[in-house]
Amino acid sequence: MDADAAPARRSETDSRIPRAAIDALISILADRFSLNRAERDQHGRGESYHPTIPPDAVCYPLSTDEVSQIVRICAAHRVAVIPFGAGTSLEGHVAALQGGLCIDLSRMTRIVAVHADDLDATIEAGVTRQQLNEYLRDTGLFFAVDPGGESTIGGMAATRASGTNAVRYGTMRDNVISITAVMPDGQVIRTASRARKSSAGYDLTRLLVGSEGTLGIITELTVRLYGIPEAISAAVCSYATVEDAVATVVGVIQCNIPIARIELLDARTIKAVNSYSTMGLKEGPTLFLEFHGSPTSTAEHLMLTQDIAQSNNVVQFDAAGTADDRSKLWRARHDVHYAIQSMRPNAKVWSTDVCVPISNLPQCIAETQADIDAASFFIATVGHVGDGNFHLGLVVDQSNPDEMAEAEILNERLMRRAIALDGTCTGEHGVGLGKIKFMELEHGPAVDVMRAVKAAIDPNGIMNPGKILAAKESR
Amino acid sequence: MDADAAPARRSETDSRIPRAAIDALISILADRFSLNRAERDQHGRGESYHPTIPPDAVCYPLSTDEVSQIVRICAAHRVAVIPFGAGTSLEGHVAALQGGLCIDLSRMTRIVAVHADDLDATIEAGVTRQQLNEYLRDTGLFFAVDPGGESTIGGMAATRASGTNAVRYGTMRDNVISITAVMPDGQVIRTASRARKSSAGYDLTRLLVGSEGTLGIITELTVRLYGIPEAISAAVCSYATVEDAVATVVGVIQCNIPIARIELLDARTIKAVNSYSTMGLKEGPTLFLEFHGSPTSTAEHLMLTQDIAQSNNVVQFDAAGTADDRSKLWRARHDVHYAIQSMRPNAKVWSTDVCVPISNLPQCIAETQADIDAASFFIATVGHVGDGNFHLGLVVDQSNPDEMAEAEILNERLMRRAIALDGTCTGEHGVGLGKIKFMELEHGPAVDVMRAVKAAIDPNGIMNPGKILAAKESR
Repeated sequence: MDADAAPARRSETDSRIPRAAIDALISILADRFSLNRAERDQHGRGESYHPTIPPDAVCYPLSTDEVSQIVRICAAHRVAVIPFGAGTSLEGHVAALQGGLCIDLSRMTRIVAVHADDLDATIEAGVTRQQLNEYLRDTGLFFAVDPGGESTIGGMAATRASGTNAVRYGTMRDNVISITAVMPDGQVIRTASRARKSSAGYDLTRLLVGSEGTLGIITELTVRLYGIPEAISAAVCSYATVEDAVATVVGVIQCNIPIARIELLDARTIKAVNSYSTMGLKEGPTLFLEFHGSPTSTAEHLMLTQDIAQSNNVVQFDAAGTADDRSKLWRARHDVHYAIQSMRPNAKVWSTDVCVPISNLPQCIAETQADIDAASFFIATVGHVGDGNFHLGLVVDQSNPDEMAEAEILNERLMRRAIALDGTCTGEHGVGLGKIKFMELEHGPAVDVMRAVKAAIDPNGIMNPGKILAAKESR
Repeated sequence: MDADAAPARRSETDSRIPRAAIDALISILADRFSLNRAERDQHGRGESYHPTIPPDAVCYPLSTDEVSQIVRICAAHRVAVIPFGAGTSLEGHVAALQGGLCIDLSRMTRIVAVHADDLDATIEAGVTRQQLNEYLRDTGLFFAVDPGGESTIGGMAATRASGTNAVRYGTMRDNVISITAVMPDGQVIRTASRARKSSAGYDLTRLLVGSEGTLGIITELTVRLYGIPEAISAAVCSYATVEDAVATVVGVIQCNIPIARIELLDARTIKAVNSYSTMGLKEGPTLFLEFHGSPTSTAEHLMLTQDIAQSNNVVQFDAAGTADDRSKLWRARHDVHYAIQSMRPNAKVWSTDVCVPISNLPQCIAETQADIDAASFFIATVGHVGDGNFHLGLVVDQSNPDEMAEAEILNERLMRRAIALDGTCTGEHGVGLGKIKFMELEHGPAVDVMRAVKAAIDPNGIMNPGKILAAKESR
């Protein structure tokens, strides 16, 4: 399936929401239902290169019960529903390929309960990680998953997001304990109790995490919290070559050092970060590191890591001193997407990601660097390399078909390379539209099982249609 | 559905495997296909109270490809297939409710690959955790999940097993990276690459973990390994009351001490253990503790835990000295099932388990202790209490209907209590036959979603029929 071709396929007639459905929705939602063109456009795109494909309408429910009522109406009228969080998607997840209704969950921002004793919190899907952590500030606890944007936690669960902390604290797969979801017939389910573990039946929590709105709409979640570590230390290591930086990462992971964050930024990215976030970093392939623990253990781990860095020809190793220094460092890291975007204002970042076993990371990055060096436009390499996960930010002029074609080839080469190295076509961005064509290559006949699950749970195909799985006949 | 009634339901005719299927199976398997009565009986039971319900035949494949051929034959003839590992099931998972073919995977014991650099290993489903850890001995790595029995790792994945290490290292949910499975039509799928994380589609790995053979047959797995900690220390704490012991556990978890193991054994269980494993433990409610880390951190954590124990009236706190002491301690812990069994030789252990949020553990255990004190037979309480998970071992005379009825009532009270406390009817044993009747109570309408998934993946219902989910009409 070709994402760019999708808008053309959509006719004016099959995208309409029937009048009766609109009336029913307005009777529930009043002015929280909108047909406004600008709002629709804003809800038809994420933050990456995918074209805007607006829904026919947008609505803003305030509760699980309202979402259930909305979905019942859409189910009765066979109207497609597309859940929407903060619009930070990178793979076209919110494109309304068949029109329909966008369900914007960003007003569902209640912190339902914090169970400090159980190290968990129950929240509505529209809560962002920033909001939750702000709320938790005085409890000594924090929510660990941290993708770049100001994403909603519901959206993070739907795309199985992760971020810089995943090497230590896991991804959304590991950090979601239970989900309340509205299923395609409007039925509300809760996938699990708050118990830390269970063997009671199929793991519907993990089935919904990463399902990108194609099986149900996540409206509430219980997530794990962690104690804020007693001591935190950070460091910045600069190298002459990407190979040396990656060799350090592999060494740290293989030595079992329980590092909390280990991020790679190539020289091009450092240049962008220096300019956008006014950092004075040495321009070269760089690792940002962080250690969590007691004062003794963080010092111990920092020292061990410095040894590994030195044996891999580190050029400069700076321990980040104060909490402010650290906070500036990680703010800059989280703003990388915007930093590289700013390098070429009329262009757009095509953000893609792969993940491979750590032992295959050096080869994957080395081969990719060769492609990047040959490219005709700016490409940033940045990644959560402790997991074997890295991103390319291809800063492309979308109005230039040659550049887009070049980007497409480079992206496809990266996907095939990662999959050949026993990796995945997306470590944390999700499939959306952009990675659909690599699903068969990565999963083989397992895609048929995914398709069977989708057909069973959403027989009418109203839930975020056209995402994750291509229709069988269009392969 | 009533487990005890199941054998009666099965008629002589609907349980037969057609001659053509038998011939086809023998042509592949030769003497690895058996109709022998003793072998069939041995494959129709686990280690708990459930009655033996033998399959019509047993076979012993040696490869994924053979399993695929076997399932294709069974699918063509609508013969039920029941996967079998080491027979350590506790909830009647292997009972052949509709007869059919038992596929015993215990001869698939190849260690396919150890990727020490990636901290993972790929193994066939019949490998036991003991075999894998023996194989890993010189690598400095270990596989962390440790249920009591000499279970196969395939069986552990199928029941989402855990054990004493789960509080630190997670359950099979967290420790399985990828699965090769034979699906109900004989198709072989691999659920994921070896990448540490992925957002590429539905999480079929987690869907198969805990599916108890009802969706597919796990034939190969890639599992996580951990570095053997530099330092290990252990302790035994004895209390006057179960309440004090549980309060210590809650304190340790809430103080965020990264304990590796924290096990509760009540006074009755200690008595059994002393006798079966010739330990000289003080008879009283007891915690077994273990700490993994560096010499400094384990000493630090042991001291913090001792403080918490003391503030909860610990009577005796003994640090287990040598590696031999520790190994004897954990051997005794793993043998608890056999120890309590030995307290009443003509009886059988009805082993049941629940898991609740840690803040609800004191109430759950206190109310359960009252039931135990009033029971007419021996009941042991033992559990992985750091997860909020505990087991009762009801040592019942199965030939005595009054005892069985009493056990049934006590078990049901425990299930309802755990579910009411936002917990689960099984933390790690699985549903099998024994917990089916609590699935609706725990999961509500989410059971319908599970049923839809089952029907989609196994439309002819040949995969371990009658487990996890009751047929809709029989509710």
